[in-house]
Amino acid sequence: MLNFDFVSPTRIIFGKKTEEKVGEEIKKYSNKILFHYGQGSIKKTGLYDKVAKSLKNAGVEFVELGGVQPNPRLSLVRKGIEICKKENINFVLAVGGGSVIDSSKAIAAGMKYEGDVWELYEGKGTLKEALPVGVILTIPAAGSEASMGSVITNEDGWYKRAINYDVLRPVFAIMNPELTYTLPPFQTAVGTVDMLTHVMERYFTNTRHVELTDRLSEATMRTIIHNAPQALKDPYNYDVRAEIMWAGTVAHNGLLGTGREEDWATHDIEHEVSGIYDVAHGAGLAVLFPAWMKYVYRHDLNRFARYAVNVWNVEADFFNLEKTALEGINRLEKYYKEDLKLPITLKELKVPDDRFEEMAQKATERGPVGNFVKLYKEDVLNILKLAK
Amino acid sequence: MLNFDFVSPTRIIFGKKTEEKVGEEIKKYSNKILFHYGQGSIKKTGLYDKVAKSLKNAGVEFVELGGVQPNPRLSLVRKGIEICKKENINFVLAVGGGSVIDSSKAIAAGMKYEGDVWELYEGKGTLKEALPVGVILTIPAAGSEASMGSVITNEDGWYKRAINYDVLRPVFAIMNPELTYTLPPFQTAVGTVDMLTHVMERYFTNTRHVELTDRLSEATMRTIIHNAPQALKDPYNYDVRAEIMWAGTVAHNGLLGTGREEDWATHDIEHEVSGIYDVAHGAGLAVLFPAWMKYVYRHDLNRFARYAVNVWNVEADFFNLEKTALEGINRLEKYYKEDLKLPITLKELKVPDDRFEEMAQKATERGPVGNFVKLYKEDVLNILKLAK
Repeated sequence: MLNFDFVSPTRIIFGKKTEEKVGEEIKKYSNKILFHYGQGSIKKTGLYDKVAKSLKNAGVEFVELGGVQPNPRLSLVRKGIEICKKENINFVLAVGGGSVIDSSKAIAAGMKYEGDVWELYEGKGTLKEALPVGVILTIPAAGSEASMGSVITNEDGWYKRAINYDVLRPVFAIMNPELTYTLPPFQTAVGTVDMLTHVMERYFTNTRHVELTDRLSEATMRTIIHNAPQALKDPYNYDVRAEIMWAGTVAHNGLLGTGREEDWATHDIEHEVSGIYDVAHGAGLAVLFPAWMKYVYRHDLNRFARYAVNVWNVEADFFNLEKTALEGINRLEKYYKEDLKLPITLKELKVPDDRFEEMAQKATERGPVGNFVKLYKEDVLNILKLAK
Repeated sequence: MLNFDFVSPTRIIFGKKTEEKVGEEIKKYSNKILFHYGQGSIKKTGLYDKVAKSLKNAGVEFVELGGVQPNPRLSLVRKGIEICKKENINFVLAVGGGSVIDSSKAIAAGMKYEGDVWELYEGKGTLKEALPVGVILTIPAAGSEASMGSVITNEDGWYKRAINYDVLRPVFAIMNPELTYTLPPFQTAVGTVDMLTHVMERYFTNTRHVELTDRLSEATMRTIIHNAPQALKDPYNYDVRAEIMWAGTVAHNGLLGTGREEDWATHDIEHEVSGIYDVAHGAGLAVLFPAWMKYVYRHDLNRFARYAVNVWNVEADFFNLEKTALEGINRLEKYYKEDLKLPITLKELKVPDDRFEEMAQKATERGPVGNFVKLYKEDVLNILKLAK
């Protein structure tokens, strides 16, 4: 086990009707906030009105900024920062999924960083503090509600880049599984992939003796795998939605990575794909993670065999660990295709092969990606071809 | 799943040599602290000197208060409060195990509560805030390094009582597994029981559909069960000590209880035993938890069968769940006796049966204990007899 420093201070307010508490919770931090949201679905569902009412009742003034798109854009972040500065706002409330939360974190970061906020994402600056961010989660997937990360896309060159700072962890996350009942099946499915991939990016490691986090990761993956198809069949099942929602947070708050070297190559590659093609993040991962696995599994057959047995109930063939390992990868792919009804090739995602070279170049221009196996441009190109 | 509100803000600074960072970490909070510790083993091991040096280097002044005993006493807590008031101290550093941490939390609570600190433990007052507490953990067991709890014994009547407040969660916990190499085997063993029991008190619940936390709990129990006997055989094995230490925190920081009704009857009963006889907490639990299980298992055979299969690898007999359930209890008892070399009867702990009545009375004088099955005085008496 490696040395680690871990803190996950986000207060989780979980359960039915918890969104009604947002005003009183924010009141502890601020009297005037930015209310940040996405494409307006919260107005159709009535969530917008509930939040506005709760804020009003608590005496919290708000300025609103909607319009966050999937793969959230730098231009809107800049607009958010401008509004916060002009209006003397010192708190950002994100109502939505990972894109809205990541956009909110970027605004919160930009408010406390002297330079241009994109410098942070380019690794040219360091963040010391940020405005507090609160969350009402409507899409369980990205885990951003308790994570230290934010991913933003710069339209100027279509660069999709991530930052990770503890000061970006939201101060609270309100999570009501009922708010996820009306998610379209595709959203539920790609959210599931996103969660599973967050665990797997940590699970495939070269660090030895990480038994607790291995087991906790397997527990989290099994829970997600077991519940997601039930949510697709029975979208109004509270308990099933609750398992998925809470598992999505645990998958990415950092606990499962404690003491381990993590990988993240597939996320880096996927960012190049969805940076250019505006593919849903989870859909990209559903295609790319199995391709990554096929490319690297020989690096540690034992770990891939353990994954197959402990996550997918593959019967261990101790005289043929490779067969066992491959069956695990096969089960994952089959699950994505048959249980989650997702595309499993780039072609199905309408990503042609004519810009593979460019994507491989961009993914590795700051050095090789991944830790389990270090991947250079040629490797990334091979993985994209495996995913074709 | 039940609604829940969960926060675990303790910064975990985990790994080799991390105790050397204590000065710089405290500096963020205070320039003058109470350095609280136990029976002086930290002087023999050299930890005291390392801590004093780190504090000095960071310019942090300290007043020391040693002498915390197992089952920490109210009188020393009062002394600590007196010192902090007199010396204008605003931070408590606990260097030790659960007893030292619980005593530190009590001092931190007493400093911000207007009445007498014992009122809190009697449930006659409510705590709103407390001084910040930092921890250097030397005994993995109680989980107090990240928990909201503190258990104190009042020598006047030998009442052992607990409080639970989020404001009592330490601000940081420095955890170096090397510091646990020299723990006597008995301490390692009873620490193991304490951790396992923290998980089991949450695992046996009447709440339905708590799949994620069931699985995470099973993962944590399996890790503890697997590593503790290795630590007894090979006490200087870093990785084994690290698994146990981190599992002990996860077992009790509250994550595994999210969304579930918890039990805690056995803890309440054990507090009466160790309040009077000064038995090590974990040793008491090793005797009492199996007795509790034997008394209540029929209440939910399915859950006890699941426990047997998923934690102890018992082969499920679906035509005889009772047999499966009983085999799980049997394995736990056997593990305590044969692998951890612990007493499994009260008699072996030198607890005679002549004060059972009094203990049952005290345990239930504020109402029945437990939630899985509500236990009245007669039930507690029966459990004590089963443990005789």
